[in-house]
Amino acid sequence: MVSATLKIHCTDKKGIISSISSFIYRNNGNIITLDEFVDPPSNTFFMRLEWDISAFTLSREQMESEIATMGQEYNYADNCQIFYSDRKPRLAIFVSKYDHCLWDILLRYKAGELKCDIPLIISNHPDLKQIADLFGIDYKVVKVNPENKLEAENEQTLLISKYNIDFMILARYMQVLSPEFVARFENRIINIHHSFLPAFEGARPYHQAIERGVKLVGATAHFVNNNLDKGPIISQSTMPISHEDSVEDLMVKGRDIEKLVLSQAMKIFLDHRIFVHNNRTIIL
Amino acid sequence: MVSATLKIHCTDKKGIISSISSFIYRNNGNIITLDEFVDPPSNTFFMRLEWDISAFTLSREQMESEIATMGQEYNYADNCQIFYSDRKPRLAIFVSKYDHCLWDILLRYKAGELKCDIPLIISNHPDLKQIADLFGIDYKVVKVNPENKLEAENEQTLLISKYNIDFMILARYMQVLSPEFVARFENRIINIHHSFLPAFEGARPYHQAIERGVKLVGATAHFVNNNLDKGPIISQSTMPISHEDSVEDLMVKGRDIEKLVLSQAMKIFLDHRIFVHNNRTIIL
Amino acid sequence: MVSATLKIHCTDKKGIISSISSFIYRNNGNIITLDEFVDPPSNTFFMRLEWDISAFTLSREQMESEIATMGQEYNYADNCQIFYSDRKPRLAIFVSKYDHCLWDILLRYKAGELKCDIPLIISNHPDLKQIADLFGIDYKVVKVNPENKLEAENEQTLLISKYNIDFMILARYMQVLSPEFVARFENRIINIHHSFLPAFEGARPYHQAIERGVKLVGATAHFVNNNLDKGPIISQSTMPISHEDSVEDLMVKGRDIEKLVLSQAMKIFLDHRIFVHNNRTIIL
Amino acid sequence: MVSATLKIHCTDKKGIISSISSFIYRNNGNIITLDEFVDPPSNTFFMRLEWDISAFTLSREQMESEIATMGQEYNYADNCQIFYSDRKPRLAIFVSKYDHCLWDILLRYKAGELKCDIPLIISNHPDLKQIADLFGIDYKVVKVNPENKLEAENEQTLLISKYNIDFMILARYMQVLSPEFVARFENRIINIHHSFLPAFEGARPYHQAIERGVKLVGATAHFVNNNLDKGPIISQSTMPISHEDSVEDLMVKGRDIEKLVLSQAMKIFLDHRIFVHNNRTIIL
Repeated sequence: MVSATLKIHCTDKKGIISSISSFIYRNNGNIITLDEFVDPPSNTFFMRLEWDISAFTLSREQMESEIATMGQEYNYADNCQIFYSDRKPRLAIFVSKYDHCLWDILLRYKAGELKCDIPLIISNHPDLKQIADLFGIDYKVVKVNPENKLEAENEQTLLISKYNIDFMILARYMQVLSPEFVARFENRIINIHHSFLPAFEGARPYHQAIERGVKLVGATAHFVNNNLDKGPIISQSTMPISHEDSVEDLMVKGRDIEKLVLSQAMKIFLDHRIFVHNNRTIIL
Repeated sequence: MVSATLKIHCTDKKGIISSISSFIYRNNGNIITLDEFVDPPSNTFFMRLEWDISAFTLSREQMESEIATMGQEYNYADNCQIFYSDRKPRLAIFVSKYDHCLWDILLRYKAGELKCDIPLIISNHPDLKQIADLFGIDYKVVKVNPENKLEAENEQTLLISKYNIDFMILARYMQVLSPEFVARFENRIINIHHSFLPAFEGARPYHQAIERGVKLVGATAHFVNNNLDKGPIISQSTMPISHEDSVEDLMVKGRDIEKLVLSQAMKIFLDHRIFVHNNRTIIL
Repeated sequence: MVSATLKIHCTDKKGIISSISSFIYRNNGNIITLDEFVDPPSNTFFMRLEWDISAFTLSREQMESEIATMGQEYNYADNCQIFYSDRKPRLAIFVSKYDHCLWDILLRYKAGELKCDIPLIISNHPDLKQIADLFGIDYKVVKVNPENKLEAENEQTLLISKYNIDFMILARYMQVLSPEFVARFENRIINIHHSFLPAFEGARPYHQAIERGVKLVGATAHFVNNNLDKGPIISQSTMPISHEDSVEDLMVKGRDIEKLVLSQAMKIFLDHRIFVHNNRTIIL
Repeated sequence: MVSATLKIHCTDKKGIISSISSFIYRNNGNIITLDEFVDPPSNTFFMRLEWDISAFTLSREQMESEIATMGQEYNYADNCQIFYSDRKPRLAIFVSKYDHCLWDILLRYKAGELKCDIPLIISNHPDLKQIADLFGIDYKVVKVNPENKLEAENEQTLLISKYNIDFMILARYMQVLSPEFVARFENRIINIHHSFLPAFEGARPYHQAIERGVKLVGATAHFVNNNLDKGPIISQSTMPISHEDSVEDLMVKGRDIEKLVLSQAMKIFLDHRIFVHNNRTIIL
């Protein structure tokens, strides 16, 4: 079975679901899942629709063209994406020296949990090359320092282009990306932050957590935007801590929750379930 | 705004969503939410569809008739229900002597959390009448003992009929209902059991939990069927316990989780989200 | 059985446990629970010790005097408290118009869950008097406005004194207490805040949560100090939310978590388990 | 710093804590943590006590001898164990073909999370040898079939003896151990079962979970005894599932919770916190 997944959003209007579901039916598609949501304050309609295209009577080009034409009537033309189940997204992982998120992603990848290809790992340090080798993934070291940031990001951009990358995971990558780099890949870079944002933004969240005496710590996976730790949140979780926990204890415990939250965000992303609207995510 | 909610299930077939959404569009309805699910093993299609009928061009009778006609084509005629937001379901609560679930339901009711009316409480004991009085709800004592079970259930059935009851909550009601009574109200009686079923079915689950030395206890809300504690599960939750907890401690802690699980099940039910299929619930 | 509970903290030093446990043994006490913790950064020793005093050979006065004498050797004299199980702490609840936390506390009280007496409810509004009446608790209205804050707090202080109150719960009391009032009752006023602090301090945390697009909301019970929402945290919890939740939905869901977190904090407090050190709580 | 950890249990009696803490103080030890619990139904006293022995005035032999002597007075002589922080327990992991728990344990081991040495992996299949090689751990294949079970277990026992193994983890090892083998290593073999026991004992718990329609699945780490899946439970957790989850989905989701529950049990074990009493665990 091969399926297409359509994501659209637009101002709500009667008839959208009817039009698109009838179009699919007329052309011999079978709807597998349909999820929709209307955001009341902004009156915005969001829809994710997956259908079996094995026996579809139109070619992909014709289908995309007709969906685009309908989009003019409903004004979703600029907010319309189609994905095919036989075309896996391609992921580049960015790392520095911490290896727990990298191991976690690669072991899930190897176990078949992630519907993507991972051809490339980019790092500002050579330390984790052995892990990449073990999984047969190219590992490119791009050194970054305050002086060469522009060139480094250009080099990274070339690699991303060369490897046909669709999206990126910052798996505890310890560099802040420039606004130019971020703008190139809007809502296609996912970061994992080791706190329950917006609590403890910025550096050393576990030190902040102990200083404040909280009884829970958390992790947050979010799209990167140009405000540090303020991008649209995809997934979050917390776990209990106590007065007995040192910063080192939190680092150990935190690894588990970072891995879970990040992998959850990746799976939602790879199922094409995430819409970004007013710096928030709608997850269908 | 007034809305209609349609629940159908049938063997999956191309065109169902298209037919119904087009019907709604043609008659000037606006879809608020559409949730559907296809169960692969049985190839069964389930759909819950809510739409604004404020400006609908058909009367409720005409609408129901046309939906039933479509149901013949798709074979959902026997598995089709329509609910209207301006017609609240009517609930009867069954209690014995424990009062925590009763207080919880009635306080949520008073706070406007529950989209139902509660005209009737039935008990086999007079103990909780004062609580019913406080909320202005009729409290009927129907004594039950091994000899009079049939008459007692007939009396209960008359009350349910007289008060136009749509569904029942057994809020720690300590009597087993007869198969005849259960058959009269299939999938309309919700019970709360104080364990994570199927662990610790039957009497005294906390004693069983301590005997077995589990590290979590739970609660389960389920529809009542004719096998004790084996009906379709709606909602479950667990919480951690330790070797320090006595049966009395579990009773205290358990009250919190019972209340949460039962209120969660009630809200799902009142949103018309529950389908029962092969003794399992599909919750859309 | 009657028990005494001793709480001490002091700079760590060899022999404290030996001295006190030997003192108890010599005088025919039986230790029920002993919990201790040494905070490494500050080298501070904390201990909570509960023992059966039914057959103790000393009077309470003698016992307290001998413990104080040992305190000079170990320098815990200023940080030493003794509680007796036959002398229940007395609680005053402060409320405004929200009633869910009040109902929750009073129903737990009536069910015997809380080891305290509740002789007094203070409010700046008359609205919740009926609930107090139902449980036979005095309800005093003390109006508060920007002009009369000082007099109002003096009136509250007189009530607290007259009713022999040991500690206070702000059960969604919508007034900020003055530094003078707070200083009078250090670490004896517990507030419930409807966010996972330090996220969303101050007013309207649910509005802030939706604005930021978080995927969890929480609640925090903390001692009140002179920095708004920055007092020592006792208990916290979070629950998942989604893009579908409006502020009103969060208010409904939030009530459940507020009640659980507040009751958890009260129980820890009433077991004499909380130590405050550097604006953090150690909970033994 | 080097510490000793003493675990004892015996019938409760006045003076135990006083005796032992005074013994430690007299010999210049400093107590780091002391946890105790009295089980009311059986009047059994349990204590875990860790103290700094860097400046202790007795040798380990003298210390052990004096503690044993005191044990005669308090009848804990048969239920007394001492562990030293400079002597790490040695673990053998048993595996079959599933690799997720093995990877998880070995990555935690490499990251320094586990206070043990892992010199040996035993498997009935050669499949996972590469993983063992990567971490430099000996991997021994011992084929097991209905005919050779006795010889196989003798071979395993020899390996365990040769490698000086203290405890074993069955990391999804798909063989049932004989009563003789289990008896040799009482409360030293930990198994991970992929359900919330006692629900769904035995084979294929995820199939059972879907058949029953539960809304949560779990995992349980327990000591192995001679009743399948009925040994003393150390750690359990659950996670939500829905009608959408197939057996394959549960296997994917279940891996995460199995890893967390098993690693939690291992850490508790390695901290010498577990007592077994009447087929239940007391965890101090």
